[in-house]
Amino acid sequence: MSYTIEKQVQGDFNDIVEQTTTALSDEGFGVLCDIDVQHTFKEKLDEEYRQYRILGACNPSLAHQGLETELQLGTLLPCNVIVYETEAGTIGVSAVDPEVLLSVVDNPELDQIATDVRERFNRVLGSLPEA
Amino acid sequence: MSYTIEKQVQGDFNDIVEQTTTALSDEGFGVLCDIDVQHTFKEKLDEEYRQYRILGACNPSLAHQGLETELQLGTLLPCNVIVYETEAGTIGVSAVDPEVLLSVVDNPELDQIATDVRERFNRVLGSLPEA
Repeated sequence: MSYTIEKQVQGDFNDIVEQTTTALSDEGFGVLCDIDVQHTFKEKLDEEYRQYRILGACNPSLAHQGLETELQLGTLLPCNVIVYETEAGTIGVSAVDPEVLLSVVDNPELDQIATDVRERFNRVLGSLPEA
Repeated sequence: MSYTIEKQVQGDFNDIVEQTTTALSDEGFGVLCDIDVQHTFKEKLDEEYRQYRILGACNPSLAHQGLETELQLGTLLPCNVIVYETEAGTIGVSAVDPEVLLSVVDNPELDQIATDVRERFNRVLGSLPEA
């Protein structure tokens, strides 16, 4: 079973990052963390790398519910959505599959939250222009 | 199997965050993401919450190795270390167990990286003052 939900998207890289951020916001997720992997590798390793962004998405209400039942859950938060250049010339957008991610936590009280986040991520990807 | 490596630590909350950040740096991890959960819940939900920080730790060289073999790995990065107040009056410091986290990825080429990160996290926790 894949640990991500993926889509190939058509468009300009930075536009797709912006559209993804807006679509996440429409589903109640703030981007609490935005890592520019290309920039980080250039700065820290002097390595060239494809454009690749890691957006850490957090829905505060769902995160609060999750932490109330599972204090250590913060080690797995926020849930990431990545945007990256592919060899095919499209832009890939992948969200971590929250059901797979939370399978490492043995706590059935999180199941409903994971399903809810998964449905929201599916709608986020669904809103982006297919390649 | 637990998905975290935990330690109860004695000291002032902010001092522990600083010591953890320094210890991570000594092991080659930059903190690329620092989420103040208490502040976020107050601001977004008007909810009181314990002091709780999520530090997203990234070792650029190991992240680069990981992404070279597994492009989607960014959905699971950075690896988090959390610092939080406990009911017992101590400070908890927990790192996600990278071996458990990466078990959701079916890619044996990541095993050595996961073990390496785990050993580094164990040394980070080992350096903190036991409660």
